[in-house]
Amino acid sequence: MGWTVGPAEAEAIALGAGVLGTGGGGNTYLGKLRLMQELKRGARIEVIDPADVPDDGVAIAVSGMGAPTISIEKPEWGRESYEAFMALERHTNTRACAVVPGEIGGANSITPLIVAAQSGLPCVDCDPMGRAFPELQMDTFSIYGVAPSPCALCDDKRNILVLDRADTPQSAEHIFRAATIAMGGHAGLAMPYLRGDEIKRLGIWHTMSLARTIGHAVLEARARKESPTEAVLAVAPGRLLFAGKIMDVERRTVTGFARGNLTILGHDGWHGQQMHIDFQNENLIAWQDGIPVASVPDLICILEEATGEPVGTEMLRYGLRVVVLGLPADDKLRTERALAWVGPAAFGYDIPYRPIQEASFVAER
Amino acid sequence: MGWTVGPAEAEAIALGAGVLGTGGGGNTYLGKLRLMQELKRGARIEVIDPADVPDDGVAIAVSGMGAPTISIEKPEWGRESYEAFMALERHTNTRACAVVPGEIGGANSITPLIVAAQSGLPCVDCDPMGRAFPELQMDTFSIYGVAPSPCALCDDKRNILVLDRADTPQSAEHIFRAATIAMGGHAGLAMPYLRGDEIKRLGIWHTMSLARTIGHAVLEARARKESPTEAVLAVAPGRLLFAGKIMDVERRTVTGFARGNLTILGHDGWHGQQMHIDFQNENLIAWQDGIPVASVPDLICILEEATGEPVGTEMLRYGLRVVVLGLPADDKLRTERALAWVGPAAFGYDIPYRPIQEASFVAER
Repeated sequence: MGWTVGPAEAEAIALGAGVLGTGGGGNTYLGKLRLMQELKRGARIEVIDPADVPDDGVAIAVSGMGAPTISIEKPEWGRESYEAFMALERHTNTRACAVVPGEIGGANSITPLIVAAQSGLPCVDCDPMGRAFPELQMDTFSIYGVAPSPCALCDDKRNILVLDRADTPQSAEHIFRAATIAMGGHAGLAMPYLRGDEIKRLGIWHTMSLARTIGHAVLEARARKESPTEAVLAVAPGRLLFAGKIMDVERRTVTGFARGNLTILGHDGWHGQQMHIDFQNENLIAWQDGIPVASVPDLICILEEATGEPVGTEMLRYGLRVVVLGLPADDKLRTERALAWVGPAAFGYDIPYRPIQEASFVAER
Repeated sequence: MGWTVGPAEAEAIALGAGVLGTGGGGNTYLGKLRLMQELKRGARIEVIDPADVPDDGVAIAVSGMGAPTISIEKPEWGRESYEAFMALERHTNTRACAVVPGEIGGANSITPLIVAAQSGLPCVDCDPMGRAFPELQMDTFSIYGVAPSPCALCDDKRNILVLDRADTPQSAEHIFRAATIAMGGHAGLAMPYLRGDEIKRLGIWHTMSLARTIGHAVLEARARKESPTEAVLAVAPGRLLFAGKIMDVERRTVTGFARGNLTILGHDGWHGQQMHIDFQNENLIAWQDGIPVASVPDLICILEEATGEPVGTEMLRYGLRVVVLGLPADDKLRTERALAWVGPAAFGYDIPYRPIQEASFVAER
């Protein structure tokens, strides 16, 4: 079940992870360039099946922490996450046998591949979200009890911070968010520190493969001049929620996050209608004429209509013609326990979570 | 040269360190209560001469980090600094042979004595300021090149943060300040990690003894109904700068510091004159009718006129009758190098530093 990442896979993963990022996870174009550089240097990057991680083996999840808007303004040093990874190895006096994606969305699908290249370790084909989320505690590892500490953060000046103990995952988020802001709004994160059995039991399997599959599908559709939207929906379960032109974007950096909303003016079957989408790094809730038609933890994905290119929160702008897809979240994110951490209420919305599959009130095209 | 801290010493140190705190370092009354509790439990606290620390022995400095105004609003857990101290021992895989005061002023003179009680280690009779300063890099250890990292921070919920590497002491300040704010505005700090030879070469010697001496002098003057001001100036070199009634205090918590200023309306020889004092946790500059008459790094100490009780920034209030003393900073803080870190310019003031002894323009009583 293992596979190797070459330039074609890098291209596909960046595109597919942009879809799964639901707006966040960091700019995939810059991430892809960094990965291509590693490949040009001759790095061999292996993706392994979660089943192949020994139960008692140690692995460390990595990602970038910060706002996606900052990821395109503040160039990375390139070793932030790897330094955080090594700091955690030193602090725990152990050696990891693999790298785990901290989230699969956006550039954060690429960060673990880069750390795999830098460390010579394989990357595990899973993550704890199947998407991107803005806060550290919003993943299946935290939700189902993996300790948030120790974890490590490193900035572009090689300031390295280790959280030796956190009383709750929320405290880890609160303290590391403040540190990330002090570090300029973006830093490399190594968290959590995992055993193989936890990865197998709590991870969402084969999401790196899914990113690659989605990316391939879009690239093939482009080559054949077919609909990229239909290509995505052919390989990932979900539905088309809306199509139209972005007519307004309100976006600001608040407490280390890119927060705001956008308005899309419908065309085709949605002529005369509007969709509003609220985001906190990632797209949280899609409202159609005031009614919520999709919400966290389900994925709300904005793609350029013509090309299927995912549009990250940092790339939203007036005039873009886009489609909005709704993809169902993994079942591990839909339990009562999980919804308290990643459902609408966790983001301050007083609306119930309705799975995207059941949202029959969505205006059909 | 070693001595033991009993209840009488605790009382004297709290008072004397309040004078040396120049407004900051944390509330000494609460600090004293915590120290008395340790003594009641039977703790034996030994203060040793810097000369008695082996050159290659490891010692760790401890203090509280945060605004003095918060130190009276947010009760301490009591083990913050000790947990930070132990985290640094674990992280470096070494055992310290002694505790060093991170600063002598205010409750921060008492914190190392409490950590000494908790750890069973002696406390070294020195510190790197001979006073209190608001920012981490403002001490002789940092100024003269001791590495700021590793260092550790612990809050009242036992969240423990280790800064494994800092590129500069200023980065350590910036990152730990943000973390301290996230931790509620006050945390226990262990920093720096020192060798005996560094303590001897860079520390300011016998400042714990000086705090005790000043405290004893004030207590004796009170008992004899003599002037506490004269008692302080008899044991610490310095001069009386002003006497009067506090007529205004402007104080707010900004970026984790208590910032503001106060105005004193003169009486006795200063009748009709005003003194303004700017502070950032500690008193920075004293202005008399618009002219700076004392500035950092020299000590600007506000005492209640009748009792000699030091008035911390958190206790400033309208109507208090006070005297303002100016005490010279240690020579290690007056070099060109040091003044760039702790002189008026380091706090944003475009005035030259004039040693308090030379400030002949001060209106004499």
